[in-house]
Amino acid sequence: MTYGAEPTARFLRACRHLPVDTTPVWLMRQAGRYMPEYRAIRAKYSMLEIIRSPELAAQVTLQPVTTFDLDAAIIFADILPPLIGMGLHLEFAKGEGPVISNPIRTPYDIDLLATPPAEETMPATLEAIRLVATELAPRNIPLIGFAGAPFTLASYAIEGGGSKHYARTKALMYSEPAAWNRLMTKLVTVQGDYLIKQARAGAAALQVFDSWAGALGKQDYIRYVQPYNAMLFKMLAGAGVPVINFSTGTSSYIEEVAAAGGDVIGVDWKLPLDEGWARIGYDRAIQGNLDPATLLAPWREIRPRVDDILDRAGGRAGHIFNLGHGILPDTPVDTVRRLVDYVHERTAT
Amino acid sequence: MTYGAEPTARFLRACRHLPVDTTPVWLMRQAGRYMPEYRAIRAKYSMLEIIRSPELAAQVTLQPVTTFDLDAAIIFADILPPLIGMGLHLEFAKGEGPVISNPIRTPYDIDLLATPPAEETMPATLEAIRLVATELAPRNIPLIGFAGAPFTLASYAIEGGGSKHYARTKALMYSEPAAWNRLMTKLVTVQGDYLIKQARAGAAALQVFDSWAGALGKQDYIRYVQPYNAMLFKMLAGAGVPVINFSTGTSSYIEEVAAAGGDVIGVDWKLPLDEGWARIGYDRAIQGNLDPATLLAPWREIRPRVDDILDRAGGRAGHIFNLGHGILPDTPVDTVRRLVDYVHERTAT
Repeated sequence: MTYGAEPTARFLRACRHLPVDTTPVWLMRQAGRYMPEYRAIRAKYSMLEIIRSPELAAQVTLQPVTTFDLDAAIIFADILPPLIGMGLHLEFAKGEGPVISNPIRTPYDIDLLATPPAEETMPATLEAIRLVATELAPRNIPLIGFAGAPFTLASYAIEGGGSKHYARTKALMYSEPAAWNRLMTKLVTVQGDYLIKQARAGAAALQVFDSWAGALGKQDYIRYVQPYNAMLFKMLAGAGVPVINFSTGTSSYIEEVAAAGGDVIGVDWKLPLDEGWARIGYDRAIQGNLDPATLLAPWREIRPRVDDILDRAGGRAGHIFNLGHGILPDTPVDTVRRLVDYVHERTAT
Repeated sequence: MTYGAEPTARFLRACRHLPVDTTPVWLMRQAGRYMPEYRAIRAKYSMLEIIRSPELAAQVTLQPVTTFDLDAAIIFADILPPLIGMGLHLEFAKGEGPVISNPIRTPYDIDLLATPPAEETMPATLEAIRLVATELAPRNIPLIGFAGAPFTLASYAIEGGGSKHYARTKALMYSEPAAWNRLMTKLVTVQGDYLIKQARAGAAALQVFDSWAGALGKQDYIRYVQPYNAMLFKMLAGAGVPVINFSTGTSSYIEEVAAAGGDVIGVDWKLPLDEGWARIGYDRAIQGNLDPATLLAPWREIRPRVDDILDRAGGRAGHIFNLGHGILPDTPVDTVRRLVDYVHERTAT
């Protein structure tokens, strides 16, 4: 992959396996409910209202990079809204999480799904990216764009919301392989386009979230997910920015996840970082992997766990410090500040 | 471990790594909502009413071994009721699952937990075991007793119900290691006693469910869970029956799970069976590992998946066919019948 000139921002350098002065750190869901500034905005606006307002989304995106010494921002958005453009009715019900009132139940439902270009369906997020990228350029803080991976979006679209067993998804996947293929390729089309447009709008890196891939066993992952993720990462190779391939619950076959593509492999906390990196291969960068629940403990308990991750990274180029999943709402702000600063101090060369 | 004379029931033979005429099969939650006979009873009685009536529990336990050619019965019970005897107020709220109204929140709450013997707190389940064992003895069908592993019960007790992030559990575990140790050893005391009494009442094998252990990373598993599971399995070695060590979400460190103990290691569907068995070691028996969602597909899709598992077991002594987790409520009864019969036919020597 060619990305042009060598970047100076340490997050982008780590994505490209270049030496850094200190380990870069950002946190999944870093703009979130644990921050009072965020809660103040959410008290006035719904999730979808913020996402649909470029100014509000930009404002929320900037909150954590203003408050903490983070090495990257991530655009405030959600993985599900692209499904709206495909024809699904999505709502964020209070206390219930996302609900789709017309979920996919038959192959015919899949035929009906539209694949419009992102500038028609996600203009607010693309505009928010332009606003934030302009704002952050003088500070040399890269902005990460993101989208859901095809399996994770397919699961939401089929289950109609969160799920424990993914029973309908698997039933459709097993029973209707041709329909599954149509659904997954449509999602690759839509998500690939959306991610490329995010890069064009100013995202300096892209993260693909396959948060639910871990519902599958290794063989099903290889058969029903990996080929589509590989297509998506191939499309993204043309975007000219590094791509992070993140999933959870996949640590028993993380090699297969990595085989699908991505410059950086995001890992959860189920594997010690060195084991994960060895299995992924040291030619790839790695992102992770503190258990977010750790941040609810006192600092004296957190520090040895952070040390352990940094020790396992072993000072190799290509480690981006992050949590293994999104930060929890009860996390103390002061803990986040200490964490970010400690990673920088501890790894300064 | 000494179990007396060589058993003739093929499930017990497989637990002890002895040759069998055909692969034994049973299914987690085989007495469950997918069966019309079970739903008929549940229409009249609540979960706790059935568990607290030895006659009803025995009746439900026998339903699947009457309907299908299963190689073992498992006592109808739930992992949570032993918490009631420890002082927690447990209810099964409609549609919400189990709720504990006075969850553990402080080390002091842990000090208050009682550790009464099982005959005082779980007499109905012990009596149900006696009834079923007597009933099944002439048919040479072994009865499995079971209980929750300490971590899984601790999580319920601390979270007060189901959980997505186990944030309170981890916060207590990280912040109060001495209190965690007291909680876990109390649970080992209670659960070890309960399981041994189940064996004395007539259970011919015991399964320990660590359904939630997969919330932890490998290092936390080793530090906060493995020592207590090892204590429990050591206690159970005196019970004179084989013990199944079952967990989910632990496939990335299944060696560590196995190292805690158990004659049979139960595995979910995240690892191909041969990979799992090689990592566990062929000196142990293995139980698994069909994804329960597979059973929602047509038989033509199920059969190759069953073949694959049996091929990976490779005809070795010590494989017990099972699902990787409990059977789903929407599973067709006819599919269960086909599955059980097919495993027997396919592996008949």
